[in-house]
Amino acid sequence: MQTGGLLKELIQSLCCLPGIGPKSAQRMAFHLLQRNRDGGRHLSKVLSQAMENIAYCRDCRTLTETEVCEVCANPSRDDDVLCIVESAADVWVIDQATGFRGKYFVLHGRLSPLDGIGPEQLGIDLLEQRLGKGPIKEIILATNSTIEGQATAHFLAEIANKHHIPATRIAHGVPMGGELEFIDSGTLAHAFAGRREF
Amino acid sequence: MQTGGLLKELIQSLCCLPGIGPKSAQRMAFHLLQRNRDGGRHLSKVLSQAMENIAYCRDCRTLTETEVCEVCANPSRDDDVLCIVESAADVWVIDQATGFRGKYFVLHGRLSPLDGIGPEQLGIDLLEQRLGKGPIKEIILATNSTIEGQATAHFLAEIANKHHIPATRIAHGVPMGGELEFIDSGTLAHAFAGRREF
Repeated sequence: MQTGGLLKELIQSLCCLPGIGPKSAQRMAFHLLQRNRDGGRHLSKVLSQAMENIAYCRDCRTLTETEVCEVCANPSRDDDVLCIVESAADVWVIDQATGFRGKYFVLHGRLSPLDGIGPEQLGIDLLEQRLGKGPIKEIILATNSTIEGQATAHFLAEIANKHHIPATRIAHGVPMGGELEFIDSGTLAHAFAGRREF
Repeated sequence: MQTGGLLKELIQSLCCLPGIGPKSAQRMAFHLLQRNRDGGRHLSKVLSQAMENIAYCRDCRTLTETEVCEVCANPSRDDDVLCIVESAADVWVIDQATGFRGKYFVLHGRLSPLDGIGPEQLGIDLLEQRLGKGPIKEIILATNSTIEGQATAHFLAEIANKHHIPATRIAHGVPMGGELEFIDSGTLAHAFAGRREF
């Protein structure tokens, strides 16, 4: 019907959200227009502010609206334990799920030579500076358990080794609440080989 | 971690979208911030414009940014067939799915006395004006096939009858491509009773 260029444009713009196709975007647009205009206005405002003001933390490269993020600026958090993650979203989930009180370093990616992602793109120079700066007693390698994430963890472990800092890797195995029957064989083999005293 | 009031606010604002919970909102926020800032900025702009400028068509009450919507303003569409629907989204889907070349009337709801939704709320006075204005040779009742949608269709059929205009109802039955085994019994009984010559 070519109704309202603006309505159509709104639906198309909503498709830029991950996991949202034309059908969901349509539903969202009509929902906001018919039932929640204030919510839509508020979302527009916050979205614009966030896109302009959120940048990367000077120290750990996570997303923040200030020069140094809240975690890095927090004096009650341990400076000597560093958790290295692939993305800012990982910082968020680890901080919500665990009682981790140390600091983070965000790679914004993983080693992937074929895609042209090497140590420079991951801010390894900044990481080395950080390791050289103060005494760090543990590096937690919390990259994903994909092949590239594992390779990145190995690479980081070597750097830690060079600086004589012990590196640990988050545990891999059967997810909590998971039934063995439905776990993929790779995970199961890994969990079996990595069994621990009970 | 209380990271970034703004990031948190963005995640909360995204939750105003239908079907989006905290997890999806988190994913969307990080996606926009890390990979598609331009998309985020554009969405913010279009959203704000849409919330301010899209209102209801003077004639058919659908959503439009102009006083009269494109369908009503289109001289090549038949003035004498009127399709009555519950929401502006229905106008959109019917126009995309069918070859309908008539005009619409949007109720913005359905009769629901318990919720205080009566004929006034559905713009029936405007509809009656419209029916009195020009010659209409068919009214298509395309309200939903819920109990309230059916009741609304009956109510509208009486109005059409009063104006001596034939009213038709969209067909109900087994969806195309549907397997009988998985169709609910109400639909199947309806489809069986309403069988037509092959």
